[in-house]
This record gives sequence, structure tokens and C-alpha cells, in this order.
Amino acid sequence: MSTPPDLPSQVVTAIRSVVGSGPVALHEPSFNGNEWLYLKECLDSTFVSSVGKFVDRFEHDLVKFTGAKHAVAVVNGTAALHIALRLAGVHAGDEVLVPALTFIATTNAVTYCNATPHFMDSEIATLGMDAVKLRDYLISHTERRSGQCVNRITGRVIRALVPMHTFGHPADINGLLAIARDFNIVLVEDAAESLGSYYHGQHTGTFGLLGTLSFNGNKTITTGGGGAILTNDTELARHAKHLTTTAKLPHAWEFRHDQIGYNYRLPNLNAALGCAQLEQLPMKLSAKKALFLRYQIAFQELPGVRLVSEPVNCKGNYWLQTLLLDAEIANQRDPILRVTNDAGYMTRPAWTLMTELYPFKDCPQMDLTTAKSLEQRLINIPSSSHLVSQ
Amino acid sequence: MSTPPDLPSQVVTAIRSVVGSGPVALHEPSFNGNEWLYLKECLDSTFVSSVGKFVDRFEHDLVKFTGAKHAVAVVNGTAALHIALRLAGVHAGDEVLVPALTFIATTNAVTYCNATPHFMDSEIATLGMDAVKLRDYLISHTERRSGQCVNRITGRVIRALVPMHTFGHPADINGLLAIARDFNIVLVEDAAESLGSYYHGQHTGTFGLLGTLSFNGNKTITTGGGGAILTNDTELARHAKHLTTTAKLPHAWEFRHDQIGYNYRLPNLNAALGCAQLEQLPMKLSAKKALFLRYQIAFQELPGVRLVSEPVNCKGNYWLQTLLLDAEIANQRDPILRVTNDAGYMTRPAWTLMTELYPFKDCPQMDLTTAKSLEQRLINIPSSSHLVSQ
Repeated sequence: MSTPPDLPSQVVTAIRSVVGSGPVALHEPSFNGNEWLYLKECLDSTFVSSVGKFVDRFEHDLVKFTGAKHAVAVVNGTAALHIALRLAGVHAGDEVLVPALTFIATTNAVTYCNATPHFMDSEIATLGMDAVKLRDYLISHTERRSGQCVNRITGRVIRALVPMHTFGHPADINGLLAIARDFNIVLVEDAAESLGSYYHGQHTGTFGLLGTLSFNGNKTITTGGGGAILTNDTELARHAKHLTTTAKLPHAWEFRHDQIGYNYRLPNLNAALGCAQLEQLPMKLSAKKALFLRYQIAFQELPGVRLVSEPVNCKGNYWLQTLLLDAEIANQRDPILRVTNDAGYMTRPAWTLMTELYPFKDCPQMDLTTAKSLEQRLINIPSSSHLVSQ
Repeated sequence: MSTPPDLPSQVVTAIRSVVGSGPVALHEPSFNGNEWLYLKECLDSTFVSSVGKFVDRFEHDLVKFTGAKHAVAVVNGTAALHIALRLAGVHAGDEVLVPALTFIATTNAVTYCNATPHFMDSEIATLGMDAVKLRDYLISHTERRSGQCVNRITGRVIRALVPMHTFGHPADINGLLAIARDFNIVLVEDAAESLGSYYHGQHTGTFGLLGTLSFNGNKTITTGGGGAILTNDTELARHAKHLTTTAKLPHAWEFRHDQIGYNYRLPNLNAALGCAQLEQLPMKLSAKKALFLRYQIAFQELPGVRLVSEPVNCKGNYWLQTLLLDAEIANQRDPILRVTNDAGYMTRPAWTLMTELYPFKDCPQMDLTTAKSLEQRLINIPSSSHLVSQ
């Protein structure tokens, strides 16, 4: 297959045909519901901070939407993952399996536990961790000691496995759950990008012992900054709330804290925004799916360029619309990025692989052939839910 | 001196004479300025999250108000202190001198650096660290090794000194700065409680290498949840911004992070609230001082009960109005707490000493006679700035 004569310009044309003339951001929030009403109600109540009815309601609404038994609202997705890992039993000196192709928060949270990230390859089908390759890797690189999965080379316990649902597309959960069970590793889902995404009919973030969400400004819904921990385990949920609120024991006036906790509360002000946004989530998800379908038509004639779609038996939230270039034209990625951004359409590549970043360059890793290839071939294109109405 | 026949009831009467009939909270925020306008402007801009003009403006306004050269807005006071300690060079295995009588955030931030808190005594005059006692302690318990102050018993480097301005009353800054200089220890000010408090005419939080503020819901002004790092060092300010925004290198589309950073940004939504609150700070400070003066009159006839006032040559923000019981009637603290709270006036004791909390029970400490005595004798009484208009 030969590269089209001017692929970058054709990509611009395809994007423009869907979203109109630029400039168009990669992802912008929209506030078309009760945001205003709830923020005012919050302000009038004077409960803008660490407690308030919107925090309780937001957690309740998240439970209802995701089907998780419990949701604990926190200050952002990174904080959610930090606490989830701590509750999963990740200790100083442990290793945690994370994808090499992820946003840095996944990896940073591991280091906050004084544990070491151990980087895994991805698969083309889901953009997430490759469960087949991971199983082979664990068989050949680990051994059971006192019931625990131990890295043969480093001698460290591999405590947890953190798949991330890339751009909202569910990872191979069943394959990964089987590995977690067979190797006695705790599965914690980084569902920061996948609110509204379902694997075999069940919401992402509800399969692992704990799962985490993000409501950063660039996400499908936003609280300004915010996140949540999901779990079906009542005791873990209670512990998550305790740890994220400075581990203070309840008392009318006494200050007693029984553990080293964190100031990871979601302020009531931000939760108020979240409640209004969550009401509009079904509409936003429909709009994002519609945007995907329009892009699919626009890109269908472009050789070597494929729009990433939800994996089999999954429902994706299409958080970020994504182009996957054929391997033969990976060298077109940077020209496409330049020309589209110059034309006012914000696009960006996937994250630089974690193993390429200075802080993680000496961390253990498996062969990363697919992740490396994907990194060179993925491009996110404008994805805001409001683009379909243009 | 004998205890008055019914001191707790007399305290209720004194509080009621100032703030009217209850119930009255310990500290509530009030929103009487442009909060509403700025929140709406923020929402309409769609920039509610990690970047936006209110973050820049809030930082600018903090610089103007405090006289610090730089202010970096962050997600809360604990995060501010964590980053300030990291920038002060606190490493794993170091010790950090903190008051035993403080909120747990001061101590937790030390542990986030994998350092060990080392607990110091307080003085009656300021409720803050006792500089005279601290100097004697360091002379007898530490030695200089390669220029660094080393704890003779543990062999660990004492890297930083973190005075906290208790209830808004400035600590003995000059005494502590001299110690920092003489023993080569970095001074970081925990000014979470002292926005609007001045030591010898200079704003608290601007004396140390770095200082930190909090805008939690219970503080003099609030952003829902929020904090800031103050420093006069331009390079440290740049580094603080970098570390609190995931240490991402600037680029139009590339994701490269050169350090392990944090998601500690203050959302623009919260900064919008902060800008409006900061405009009202001078008025709130006047109201708090007026409330103090009224309480002073109300309590002047009560034997054994003294209202804590700003130290000599200081201007306090009177964040929390505070009663100090004479040592002879310390046993009246709990009856006063019970009777006042039962009467609808929220009061509370100082924090349980850090050394009494399970996570810190084995940490090094000096003799804590005064801190222990203060803990038994301090009572915070209703302090909201809006109480003076009642």
C-alpha cells in the first residue's frame, strides 16, 4: 500500500466535514443542564467544602449509574488510584503491573505507594493490556512464594495489576481477571477514561477489587477536578472514605486520627457540578457515539487510516475519538499532527510510553512491541460531545 | 484561685452575649461578594478545570495581598505542604521538626516525603513552636556532620523546621529563623491558618524558604478546597508549578514528564470562588478583630479564663477565637465543651497532640510539657466573621 499523496490534508478535510470549520479543541466540557442551579444552591447553603449534600448525592448517583455497590468521591483520579492501590494492599517494595501505554497518573499512583511500576504490553484489539502475552510473561518470569506472585529477577512481590481502559475502550477484562485469580494478584481498574463504557454489559471499573474514575475538565463529564473510587466491598468503601478524609475518627469535637490519611475529599462545590453533569451523561454518550459514526463515514475512504471502535461485546463511551494508522504509514503521524493542529483542529498522539520517561526508565518491563507500535500510530481527534450538533 | 461555681454556664452566657442565641457553628464561610458572578463567568467560559484565568488571577491576587514574590495555587493546604517540603529538599529518611500541637496535615505531609516527624514543644505566648527551648534541644541533641544538622540518637539529618501559626497567631519567626540559619535547617512555614496575619508587619508564610496557605471551607476565606505555596524564590515557584501539574514539559501535543509529579492543580472553578473571597478578606479580618474585642469584654470578668490575643508586634487574623484556661482549672475544659455544645454553641478543644496518635507514637519528640498543658486548656469558640453583624 502506498501513502496517499497528501494524507495530512485529507485528514483535515475529513475532520472538517464532520465538525465544521475550526478552531476546534480536542475535548471541551459543556454545561447545558442544572450546573448553574446546583452551584447556586451549594453557595447559598454555605456548604461548599468538605461535607455537603451534593457529595452524598454524587456518590449515590455514581452508584446508580455504574452499578457499583459503593462510590467514594475524591479530589481527582490520581488520588482515587493512590487510595485504591493502598487498599489493594500495595506496600513499599512491591511491584505493580501497569500498561506502558497510559497517562502518567496510573504510574505515579504506584510510586506514591513506594512501589515499583512494571510495564506491560498492549494489544491492538482493545488498546489495553494484552492478557495473553501477560499470562505467558508471568509464567516465565514469576514464581509462587508463600502464595504470592514474585518476580524471579527482582525478588519483589507483584501485588496488583492495573489495566486502563484506553480512550474509553474496555480492556480484555475476562482475560485479566483470570490472570489475577490464577497468579494471586489484585486487579484494580483505572477507569479514569471510561465512565459510560461497558464490558459484556457491565460498567468498567466494577470488575476489579476496586476501580477508579476521573472527572477532570477533559473527561466525558467534569467536576472541575474530581474522581471516585468504586468497589463492591462495603468494608473497603468505608476504609476509602476514612483514608480520603484524613483518617479522623468520628467525634463531636475531638481530633483523633488512627492512620496516616489524606486530604482527598471532593469539595461539595465540585460535587454540585458533578451531579448536574451526570444527569446529562446519557445524552453526552449518545452524542459521542453519533460523532464516532460520522467520523467513521468521513474516514472510510482514507487508505491506511482506521477509526478505533469499541471492542467486541463492549460498549465504549468514545471519550476520545482515535485514528489508528497502518504500520506502513506510521511516519505520517507527525505530519498529520502538524497539519491538523496548524489548521486549527487540535489533535494529539497517544502518551509517550512510560518506559521512555526519565523517572521510569529503569523500571522492569516486558517486551513492548505492540505498545511501541501503537504509540507511533495513534492520533486523537476532536471529540467533544457538543460537536454533533454543529 | 477557686473555680467559679458554674463556669461552663458562665461561658455559655458570655458567648451568647456576643453572638446571640444558638445554634452557632464554630466557623462558617460567607459569600457576600462576587462569588456568584465569577462562578457564572467560569462556567460560561467552560474553563472549569486545570487551566483558566481565575487560577492566574487568584495567584496574582495572593501575591498582591501577602507580599510574597510568587504564589502557586494548589488543591489544598496539605498538598501545598507536601510540595513545599519536597522543594525544601526533604528526602526519605530525613527528620522534620514540627510542633506536637498542630493539625495532622503538618505531620502527614512529612510522611508523604517518607521522612520522620520530630515533635517540638510550644510556648504560651504564641501557641507556636518554642524557639528558646528548641535551640537548647538542638544544641544538646544534634551535631554537625558535613554541614548538616544530624540527630545524635537516630543519626538522621534534620532537614526542615515547620512552624505552624496556631489559630492564626504568628509563631516566634525571628527566633525560629535564627535557629534555621544557625543549624542549617530549612524553614517552611505552615501558614494554613494565618492568611491575613502579620509578624512585625510582614505577612506570615513569606519568611521561610516556602510557606503554605489553606482555603478549606473552615478557613478565613474558602475556595471549597484549596491551598497555595508562597515563595520569594522564582526558580522554586517555577518548580512548584511544574510538580503540581504532573511535571509535564510544555508542548502543543506531546506528553513528556521529566519527574514524578502530582495532580495538585487548583481547578479554575475553585479559583473563581477564591478571587471573590479574597476581595472580601480585609472586611472579614476587620469583622474577626471586632468579634475578638467583643469576646474580650464578655470574658473579662470570668476568672481563670483568658481570650488568646495576637502576640506582641503581631497582627493576628483571629481565625479561631480561643479561650485559654488557667492551669488550675484545666479540669473544666471538658465540662465547658459539653455544656457549650449542648447549648448549641459549637466549641472544640485543640488537636490531640500528634504524639498521642497511633501513627506517630514512636516518632522522636522533645519534652512537651507546655504543649501538653496547652492541649488541656485551649477551647475554640464560635468565630465566623459574619457573627459581628448579629
